[in-house]
This record gives sequence, structure tokens and C-alpha cells, in this order.
Amino acid sequence: MKRIGFVGLGSMGLPMATNLGAAGFEVTGFDVRADARHAFARTGGRAADTLAEAFAGQDATILMVVNAAQAQDILFTQGALSTLPEGGVVILMATCPPAAVQALAAQVEATGRALVDAPVSGGVVGAEAASLTIMAAAPRPVLARVKPVLDALGSKVVVLGDTPGQGATAKAVNQLLCGAHLAIAAEGLSLAEALGVDTAAMLDILSGSSASSWMLKDRGPRMMQDEPPVTSAVDIFVKDLGIVLEAGRDARVALPMAATALQLFLSVSGRGLGAQDDSQIIAAYRALRGHI
Amino acid sequence: MKRIGFVGLGSMGLPMATNLGAAGFEVTGFDVRADARHAFARTGGRAADTLAEAFAGQDATILMVVNAAQAQDILFTQGALSTLPEGGVVILMATCPPAAVQALAAQVEATGRALVDAPVSGGVVGAEAASLTIMAAAPRPVLARVKPVLDALGSKVVVLGDTPGQGATAKAVNQLLCGAHLAIAAEGLSLAEALGVDTAAMLDILSGSSASSWMLKDRGPRMMQDEPPVTSAVDIFVKDLGIVLEAGRDARVALPMAATALQLFLSVSGRGLGAQDDSQIIAAYRALRGHI
Repeated sequence: MKRIGFVGLGSMGLPMATNLGAAGFEVTGFDVRADARHAFARTGGRAADTLAEAFAGQDATILMVVNAAQAQDILFTQGALSTLPEGGVVILMATCPPAAVQALAAQVEATGRALVDAPVSGGVVGAEAASLTIMAAAPRPVLARVKPVLDALGSKVVVLGDTPGQGATAKAVNQLLCGAHLAIAAEGLSLAEALGVDTAAMLDILSGSSASSWMLKDRGPRMMQDEPPVTSAVDIFVKDLGIVLEAGRDARVALPMAATALQLFLSVSGRGLGAQDDSQIIAAYRALRGHI
Repeated sequence: MKRIGFVGLGSMGLPMATNLGAAGFEVTGFDVRADARHAFARTGGRAADTLAEAFAGQDATILMVVNAAQAQDILFTQGALSTLPEGGVVILMATCPPAAVQALAAQVEATGRALVDAPVSGGVVGAEAASLTIMAAAPRPVLARVKPVLDALGSKVVVLGDTPGQGATAKAVNQLLCGAHLAIAAEGLSLAEALGVDTAAMLDILSGSSASSWMLKDRGPRMMQDEPPVTSAVDIFVKDLGIVLEAGRDARVALPMAATALQLFLSVSGRGLGAQDDSQIIAAYRALRGHI
């Protein structure tokens, strides 16, 4: 593993590709947006002009794209996979539904190549610091080959199993908790607001008690701001909780808390606030109280 | 503030009353159960034979009872309040609905005495270590008088306002988050179980990511045990989420996540498992998957 293609140089992908280069890999990066390619080139990376260059002659190609449909389009509709050498590995690091990852893996394997299911948590901060948690699933020999690549991107590689889709499931479970915790923090603070309790004192209590969550401590203070900076948008959770519920639906698993949380995110997005910081899930609760 | 009555010598009340004595207060403790009175006497405390003794001649009397109905019964139906000297203070530390606390406070004030709304978080561990968080609300002069008493019981006294009921609201918000976080942890682990993901690896990921909560870290491992020890029972959350939703209903505040969580706790309690550890909320999810 020396030559690595990288597709998707967004807010996560750009620092990840850069970290790979810094770790000694020969990285060829591609993004459909020219400005993203230029940004990668400015970090000293090799920016490809075409998608095919990110596959041709590579040992592995990482996909850090928006969703499973984009991965499907790149690999098969546009046919980039056929330019990856036989025995090459596709490392899918985007957040995708488990069933879609399983189906993609079967298609990739049918061409004599392998797919590693490897979604991440840790956000832009983790991508920049190469401290991502990577949830990996693939046959063990394939995992062993790509391990140095994953180690260059994250500080924790957890192997969930040998079947692609198990990493995606772990990511879905992770996002289930994140999204639902956000809704609950907003629900609690909304009740405090309605009953005239000092929300700063309330946050102080909750953050130090058995009621605390990572999301409460990080997003709770921003729920009290009128226009908080955007670190992650409401629409990210519309997408991710959608994937969670798709995973549940595919496996016929009822997820009542996650389903409720998604409805609240949808209501905020439906009011045109989908690009706002995800702490603004509290706007759904304020709307329910008539404070539009 | 020197002479303190204490009613309710249960798993929380007994160590609290003992800590008060150790801090130099003259504590007279009462419980309807003779064995609880004897346990208090064995710690060197003065155990009263009648309820009235825990009020007569006291500067303040602490109520660490099961619910607001018990407090109402003790103070007014049984008439114990009339034996508390005029100017005396009732410190209500049980978890009660905010509206009930407000009503009790008005009744107590009408007799020339005061009520301090002071529910706690921290559980038996916090009660024993005198490290409880106390959520206090009462007129400031009254709070100033009882402050040394509260300081002997907890490590953090947060003043929520000067109206009794505001402490109860804070406690309700606290329990909303605790109960809902328990349900969410179970929901996520249930999805992982159903999709064949290693739950130990899953817990490892979740506990170190933005998906973590205090409840997940504490109760998650116990969700994977067949018969975990009981630190707090399922029925405690049936009661506490009931109080949360009563607070919401009284104030006309919609709490969709908490309402869903309560239904799940109810289903476990309804199967006769209410005395089991609250981590067994996961039994509701397993039942939904047909694993009874």
C-alpha cells in the first residue's frame, strides 16, 4: 500500500488526504469541484484532473463522498472501478446505510477487487488531527493490508467484523445516539425555558450530573445563542438519522426514539433552517410552544 | 439552624440524616418502618417514635419521602406541620412535580412557615458521600437560613430561583435527560444486536465519541448482562418520567422524546420487571424484536 487515490476533498476529505500525504503515501486526490482540487494542490498534494486518475494504477482508492448513491455512481455508472488494478481496494469512509454498503461490496468483489467498509466519527476536528475513530469491517486479510492507511487517518481503528456493512451499522448506531441526544438536550432546555428556570444554571447542573451527554455539553450552550456558529448543520442529521432509520427498516428493527428525533430535525429543516447549526433543533421545540 | 427533623430514612435518607448528624446538627429522624428507625439509631442518631417528634421544636424538618402525596399527607392530613414552631422551615428534597411543590409551598406559607424546594441528584453514592447536587428554590432569606444544612448534604447547591417549584422543574429536566438517555442507549445497542455487530466493540466506540452519555457509559455494560445488580430500578423511571410528563402537561409543553421513553419503561414494568435494574429498559427493545 503506497499509491492511494482519494475522491471527495470536502471539509473532511481535504485534511484526511493531506494527512495521508504527510504520512508518506503517494496520494492522488480528486473532487468534482475545481476549487477543492486547487485547495488540495496548494497543500502539496497531487490533484487529478479526472476521476479515473484517482483509480488508475492505485493500490487503494478512498471514497469520502456524500452518500452511497455517489459511491455507486463513481464506481459503476461512471465506471471508475474498472481502472483500479485487479486486487485493488476501495475504502468507503462515507456514512452510508449498511445494506447499501453490503450491496456495493458484493458488486466490487465480483470484479476481483475488495471493499473495506470504514466510516468515521470525530468530525472535521478529528479529520484534521488524524484522530478519527474508524469503524472497519472487511475480510481480515484485506483489513491487514489497509491498516497502515487507516492508522494514518485515525487514532482508533475498531474492527467490527469481516462483513462490509458492519462498520456502517456501527456508524448508524453512533449517529442514532448523537442525533437523539441533541433532541433530548433541546427538549429538556425547552421545558426549563417554558417554566422560567434559569437555563445557564440548568446547563450547569445537567453537565455535571448523570443527565450529561457529550452533545449536551457541546451543543447545549449554543442552543441558548441566537445565531450560533455552524459546526455541523441540521441537515446532516436529517441525512444521518434517515440512514439510521433505513438501517432499522431494512432489518425490521423498531427505533421509536430515533424516529421521533428525525421528525423534529425535519421540522427545523422544513422551515428553511437546514443549514443552521444542529443545536438549532431547539427551534422545533420553540415552534411547538408557539415561539416561532 | 441547629435542630433538624428528618422524615424518610430510606436508601437516600438514612445516609443524608447521618451526614447531617456528623456535621454537628441535632437530628431527629423518623420513618414509618421500624427497621429504618433502628438503622438510624445504630448510626448514633436520635430516632423518633412518632412523626410529630420530627417536627415539634425543630428549626427545620427535611422530607425525603417517596412523592408529593406523602408530603401532603404528613404535613396536612396527619397534621405534623402544626407541631413545627412558627417560622420553621420544611425542606422538601423528594422528587415531586413542580406544580405540586408550588401548591404545597403556598399551603405551608399560609401557616406562617416556609418551604424550601430542594430536590437532589447524585443517587445513593452522592447521599453517602455528601456530594449531592441540590437544586434549590425559595425566597432568598429562607435559602440563606438553610444553606448550612444543604451544604452538609451536598457538594453543589444551585439556586434556581426564589419560587418553590423551580427546583422541582430542574430535577424534572434532569430526569428527562437521564431516562431518555437510557432508552436511547438501549435503542442503539438493540440495533447493533439485531444487525450482528459486536456490542462490546460498539460500546467502546460510543463511549469515546460524541455519542457518549453518562448513562451509556454507566448502564450500557449492564444492558449486556443477563441479571445485572440493581442500582436503580425500572420503576424509578416510571415514576420520574411520569413527573416529567406531568410537569410538561401542567405547563402545556410537548415532550415527545420523554413521552416515548416512558412508554418503553412502562412496557418493561408491565411485564413484571419493574424492580429490575433500569438498564433492563433494553428488554422493551428485545421484546419489540420478538426476543421475549
